[in-house]
Amino acid sequence: MRSMAEPQDHLAHLDHRGDATGFSGQIHALIPKCKLIENFSTAEVRLLSHFMNVYNAERGAEIIHEGDGGDFMMLILEGKVEVVKQDRWNRPQVLALVDAGSTLGEMSMIDGEPRFATCIAVEPTTVAVLDRENLARIIVEQPMLGAKVLMELVLMLSQRLRTTSSRLVQLLDEQTERAANTAL
Amino acid sequence: MRSMAEPQDHLAHLDHRGDATGFSGQIHALIPKCKLIENFSTAEVRLLSHFMNVYNAERGAEIIHEGDGGDFMMLILEGKVEVVKQDRWNRPQVLALVDAGSTLGEMSMIDGEPRFATCIAVEPTTVAVLDRENLARIIVEQPMLGAKVLMELVLMLSQRLRTTSSRLVQLLDEQTERAANTAL
Repeated sequence: MRSMAEPQDHLAHLDHRGDATGFSGQIHALIPKCKLIENFSTAEVRLLSHFMNVYNAERGAEIIHEGDGGDFMMLILEGKVEVVKQDRWNRPQVLALVDAGSTLGEMSMIDGEPRFATCIAVEPTTVAVLDRENLARIIVEQPMLGAKVLMELVLMLSQRLRTTSSRLVQLLDEQTERAANTAL
Repeated sequence: MRSMAEPQDHLAHLDHRGDATGFSGQIHALIPKCKLIENFSTAEVRLLSHFMNVYNAERGAEIIHEGDGGDFMMLILEGKVEVVKQDRWNRPQVLALVDAGSTLGEMSMIDGEPRFATCIAVEPTTVAVLDRENLARIIVEQPMLGAKVLMELVLMLSQRLRTTSSRLVQLLDEQTERAANTAL
């Protein structure tokens, strides 16, 4: 089994700062801004941080590339990240600009499918990374913590799915309305 | 703590058949059609069924009502269910027609938010129900099974979020294109 502190291949271009135990205070301070750990105790944050790796990204560095494989998610500890997706004319569209406390990449960590969007550090940025292998280790070695992490992930995805589904239904309604108006 | 076999208040209008242990063979047979349990062993299905309740719904019975609270998900064992959502003019729009092996209501089980859509049995239907309290019991009493259920839920939501997000991005692209054409 890979050592916890071994860096992710996909992040080899970033500066690996080791595992996140030395950052657990900083992670804990993000609780009010971070859904993933909002219900975590100090001890649980410390335990979780053993299974995460920390990386520094320079301004302009791509942390996640749309379409790539990849089996990790990240929690932004410091800095700002732009989330960009190519539209059908291959023009980059900014989907979001996020900062400390935001998490990115959960979907691919879970399902291993290609990344939905690209994430670029727009200022010097520090991230704590959790990969699928370490998530599996948490589940086996610390089942209650594992269940808690998974429960929070389910909650986050569920809320995002609600938001996205509502926007989709709204857009489809607008299309129907426009079609009806055109027909009049 | 409520007994496992005690029926859900929101399902009091349906015929409660007791807990799902007597149905674990039927549940197991649905593995090829059901993402939630696709990686479950026979023993895991049997264990899970202890924490589920089975209900019969007559043709036309509403099993889930859009906008209601509700803290359970269900697995369709037999029958057919129509998923309907009101559009902004309060007209019911059929979102999906699903049958044995499909699961419904995961989002509200997890986050307790109002139901996104209404589910109506369009023929005599049997469902196995898992509620949040029993999910919590699984996590405490059978942590590895709990982690497995949660992992499958995360996978399902993640895949649905991808599909929904892609459709949303596509629709937004089409709008942009239409706006550009109109401007020409």
